[in-house]
Amino acid sequence: MRIVLALGGNALQSKDSGNRYEDQMKQAEETASCLADLLMAGHELIVTHGNGPQVGRILLQNEGARETTPAMPLYVCGAMSQGMIGLMLEQALRNELKKRSYEKSVATLLTQVRVDENDQAFQNPTKPIGAFYSKQEAAALVEENGYAMMNDAGRGYRRVVPSPLPKQILQKETIEALLKADHAVICTGGGGIPVIHEADRWQGIDAVIDKDFASAVLANELDADLLMILTDVAQVAINYRQPDEKWLEEVPVEEMESYLDQGHFAKGSMEPKVKACLHFVRQEGRGAIITDLRQAKDAIEGKSGTRMKK
Amino acid sequence: MRIVLALGGNALQSKDSGNRYEDQMKQAEETASCLADLLMAGHELIVTHGNGPQVGRILLQNEGARETTPAMPLYVCGAMSQGMIGLMLEQALRNELKKRSYEKSVATLLTQVRVDENDQAFQNPTKPIGAFYSKQEAAALVEENGYAMMNDAGRGYRRVVPSPLPKQILQKETIEALLKADHAVICTGGGGIPVIHEADRWQGIDAVIDKDFASAVLANELDADLLMILTDVAQVAINYRQPDEKWLEEVPVEEMESYLDQGHFAKGSMEPKVKACLHFVRQEGRGAIITDLRQAKDAIEGKSGTRMKK
Repeated sequence: MRIVLALGGNALQSKDSGNRYEDQMKQAEETASCLADLLMAGHELIVTHGNGPQVGRILLQNEGARETTPAMPLYVCGAMSQGMIGLMLEQALRNELKKRSYEKSVATLLTQVRVDENDQAFQNPTKPIGAFYSKQEAAALVEENGYAMMNDAGRGYRRVVPSPLPKQILQKETIEALLKADHAVICTGGGGIPVIHEADRWQGIDAVIDKDFASAVLANELDADLLMILTDVAQVAINYRQPDEKWLEEVPVEEMESYLDQGHFAKGSMEPKVKACLHFVRQEGRGAIITDLRQAKDAIEGKSGTRMKK
Repeated sequence: MRIVLALGGNALQSKDSGNRYEDQMKQAEETASCLADLLMAGHELIVTHGNGPQVGRILLQNEGARETTPAMPLYVCGAMSQGMIGLMLEQALRNELKKRSYEKSVATLLTQVRVDENDQAFQNPTKPIGAFYSKQEAAALVEENGYAMMNDAGRGYRRVVPSPLPKQILQKETIEALLKADHAVICTGGGGIPVIHEADRWQGIDAVIDKDFASAVLANELDADLLMILTDVAQVAINYRQPDEKWLEEVPVEEMESYLDQGHFAKGSMEPKVKACLHFVRQEGRGAIITDLRQAKDAIEGKSGTRMKK
């Protein structure tokens, strides 16, 4: 099967681990073991990943040296995070495959994703990023850089950026060429580097693309068989944390859509994941799974996870 | 022709321009125009680039936020610079090709380069990187992180890292697959992310690989026809800045080797470029050129540059 596999934050950082490179690399090695299982089962893998904590730290570093060296735009920080995280995942996966004496090329591809400049998200930036500021500092940043700033749950002011919908993966043909050449491909990191197409030119834009939505668009463009969204729970629940809580296993699309409409899934958490899956599974012959990284293989075999099908 | 083209620092920054993203992007656009000329002449292009100023600034940013977020190893900063610079070059080239209505895919590939852990450079780190420190700060860094520190021309103390020779491009097969799929490939940025192979595992290591040497190894592995090293002079000179200064045009390998032995070329500047070219041109049918970015096309046509042949 051709599988687009979207790694959640826990693929690179556990709740208990630190932020150091070694900590993240250790987590990446566990992740690589799960990925190697899937490759050795003969699947084609296109691996995407989040970048929230990592790009947050890059922004802090940009802020920290603002006096001596110019800060880079957010979308450039996104490109940097693709390099950083791609290296971790690629190296961990190469080593795991080598340990198992399994021959498979792995490549990490810088990936840009087109968003629509008229996406209404640009009128209403909602995604907080980077450091916390005082009210005065925030006002200065609005003045100087035209940032949108928002009071974040009383902890201080943060920059907020738009989260537009992904429309197109610019590197689609490249990814296809690599799959054809028998590669596992790491791409579309952090939901991709957001670009708009304006006056016949590509142009980066400061925004954050939901990595699960971007993965669904990617899976659609590559005509994948399966979209797997890996997170830190084994299954999706309805009536979550209520007496009639029910964990979902095999769910037809229509049923999942009605759960979605009934508001069963937490906004900004499980809801976008379910939406991304439903977006992809609109066509016959396609499946989507939400599960934990460690249950990925079992979920493909129908033994775990929440599995959606048309 | 299959051409490995190594871009110098001036491909992304001019002496007069600033360090801001927009400044670098403007320079990248000029560079892209030269690259597009070569692509439209029908050549296969593998584009490599330096990362000195960019990784220097990433290190400053890492230092600047050390109190709040852990600094990344140098080789991870190298991976980040590949993402940053790759985005600039790829986007500029895509736009330039679009403007000219010329269809060609462009891909940026994260690239690791194997170095030998027994390379004597590891016993004698010489390459200064990052911020300047006082003697006391330097002593503390030696103590805490095991850094090698050196007094840099009286301007203060800086960390020095080894500059080992590149031995192997890990992504060789991937680059070949992309070339086969009619791509221009941006790769081996900053000389590649240095890795060693130890106890049957790949492991990143803090070092700086000369990007011209890495490009020569890459050109050799890809069996390129031509290695072009682009810098800020149109030709190489012997007796440089002396009354009998002579600019070199077409030079047989043996002649160039004798100039090299006679010490005509500045260490750390023109010498490694000439060495990289000679390393590549040892086989029949291969050529190497050192010239300015803007003269690249003329140089290929034998009208400019310093051209070496077996």
